[in-house]
Amino acid sequence: MRLIGKEEIENIAIGAALLGTGGGGDPYIGKLMALQAVEEYGPIRLLDPEEVPDDALVVPSAMMGAPTVMVEKIPNGDEAVAAFKALEEYLGKKIYATMPIEAGGVNSMLPLALAARLGLPVIDADGMGRAFPELQMVTFHLEGVSATPMVISDEKGNSLLLNTIDSVWAERIARKATIEMGGSVMNAIYQMDGKTMKKSSIHHILSLEEKIGARIRTALKNSKHPIDEILELTNGHQLFQGKVTDIDRKTQDGFAKGTASIEGIGSNTGKTCKLHFQNEHLLAEVDGQVVCVTPDLIAVLDAETGMPITTEGLRYGARCLVIGMPCDPKWRTPKGIEVAGPEYFGYSAPYQPVEELVLVKEEV
Amino acid sequence: MRLIGKEEIENIAIGAALLGTGGGGDPYIGKLMALQAVEEYGPIRLLDPEEVPDDALVVPSAMMGAPTVMVEKIPNGDEAVAAFKALEEYLGKKIYATMPIEAGGVNSMLPLALAARLGLPVIDADGMGRAFPELQMVTFHLEGVSATPMVISDEKGNSLLLNTIDSVWAERIARKATIEMGGSVMNAIYQMDGKTMKKSSIHHILSLEEKIGARIRTALKNSKHPIDEILELTNGHQLFQGKVTDIDRKTQDGFAKGTASIEGIGSNTGKTCKLHFQNEHLLAEVDGQVVCVTPDLIAVLDAETGMPITTEGLRYGARCLVIGMPCDPKWRTPKGIEVAGPEYFGYSAPYQPVEELVLVKEEV
Repeated sequence: MRLIGKEEIENIAIGAALLGTGGGGDPYIGKLMALQAVEEYGPIRLLDPEEVPDDALVVPSAMMGAPTVMVEKIPNGDEAVAAFKALEEYLGKKIYATMPIEAGGVNSMLPLALAARLGLPVIDADGMGRAFPELQMVTFHLEGVSATPMVISDEKGNSLLLNTIDSVWAERIARKATIEMGGSVMNAIYQMDGKTMKKSSIHHILSLEEKIGARIRTALKNSKHPIDEILELTNGHQLFQGKVTDIDRKTQDGFAKGTASIEGIGSNTGKTCKLHFQNEHLLAEVDGQVVCVTPDLIAVLDAETGMPITTEGLRYGARCLVIGMPCDPKWRTPKGIEVAGPEYFGYSAPYQPVEELVLVKEEV
Repeated sequence: MRLIGKEEIENIAIGAALLGTGGGGDPYIGKLMALQAVEEYGPIRLLDPEEVPDDALVVPSAMMGAPTVMVEKIPNGDEAVAAFKALEEYLGKKIYATMPIEAGGVNSMLPLALAARLGLPVIDADGMGRAFPELQMVTFHLEGVSATPMVISDEKGNSLLLNTIDSVWAERIARKATIEMGGSVMNAIYQMDGKTMKKSSIHHILSLEEKIGARIRTALKNSKHPIDEILELTNGHQLFQGKVTDIDRKTQDGFAKGTASIEGIGSNTGKTCKLHFQNEHLLAEVDGQVVCVTPDLIAVLDAETGMPITTEGLRYGARCLVIGMPCDPKWRTPKGIEVAGPEYFGYSAPYQPVEELVLVKEEV
């Protein structure tokens, strides 16, 4: 156990934005909520997964909806508390700890804000090791943990308790309800015991985010570009550098979907990189050749500062670096590829690990 | 208390189809389910509302969704049981009795089937005295009773417990979830105590339906047209007789919406009647002049037999009678007109009682 205060939150927010691969919501809003909660309620206890008793009730917390909506519809914190109270009452058991389900911008931050408010510890683990757009895209699901019973709550005071036959049905029904409830809600989801959490989660993700954020900030303070630090910490590869020339983005079915085109500069002059996103960046091509694809991670960094840019933060003319990072090994299983690989998202490219695609690219 | 068996169910089904004003789902499916349940579990106890203790827990039961969907997706009965069990567990109190929320075709029958299965009595009352397409269109809502906590369950085994800030939000969220769940679900809704039920419900509606059905069947047995019996029992007015010449029907937002045109025959030769429906018939015009409008009841009867025809049963070329019947006085209040009057459904005609509209028509 160690304590998480403002400094750690600042670092985690930056690391989360990077691993959020452009999605997971704007980390800025979530960071403000977490900072304010720590200011009001004091620092948060961060638990190593192994510190959680096997029979303890663990309930991850997450925002569901299109990040583009959330920018204008900021959660007030009561939704998440309402969802937790409702699930606790339904299960008739006290919640021992919470944790993020994804390493996304806002969804790394909101569980911290909730934990501070409720006086609960946060577990240093998540269910993605990155961000993904759908509820069943978690390592919990790969291990057979059900998303339900889950509660979704909105800022108006409406809440739903779902019990579904599988997590794909939970996703389908909750998604439609979320859209009707205004486009974003808070979830209390994938409740499980400590033993299941240890087996099915990705460990030490908050610590990794914190380390990434700290290294980026230190580099910036020393007027050094943090790209090398980032690639070292994430085993990543630089895929492209260029200037955003076209963005096609729409909010559809509750998701921010689209593509961005980047015209090469420097060593990439004359080439074009195309990014496909559905809340998160899912596929990167250079001149039509796939260079990184889901479940591996694609992030866009500001060329000047190395700071991660979300898909909704992408602007015409922005100079950027595109990097690819290997996903957690849990995703590189047949079940992992089925749940979150390119085919599921409608891309015809087969999955290939980024480190292999990069080799091919370098050979050509 | 009296017992309801097969004979009573046959009669109630016919009366419910009439008061269902073309909606509430095909009574045939619901009737089969009720008959089968009575066959299996024995007759059902029908309670007068005054027999219910003031502090007893009453939970109405209803199918939600487009009747056009339900014809192909027949409930198996387990959904309603699951919804009741889930709500009972959530409330931590035993359900004393059920009742219909509407006098619609299938929604008068399904509570009978459920009651037989669970061994619960049915209360001789409902919340509409007719059928309506949305959850907040009940006299319970007019009296301030909340639709939630409510449970909706589908035939696959998915269920949702809703807690919303008002019944209009319950309608909005449940409707979207229903569409995603396949287009029709079973609800345990508007839970209330016996005292509230007595005050907010429309009493003796099942008895009225039974009486209507019995009189229609007796007339038919005696080769007599039942129209006079129907008008007498419902204080109704014959509005039109003719032949269906055009039907424009689509399933939209979970509703069966459309219009039907009827070309006059007999004393109505040369005239045209246009019916507007959204699951139920809501507005009837003759040559552009409104002759009956919601919340008053509009029913279409087979010209030969006098049997009620549902909106989904309307066929090109069918000869029919159109009748108008006054709604329960609870609907003729300002709040009643606001909730279920013409303006809510998007019609510009102001509400006027059918008995006044008929006088105007006769004067012209």
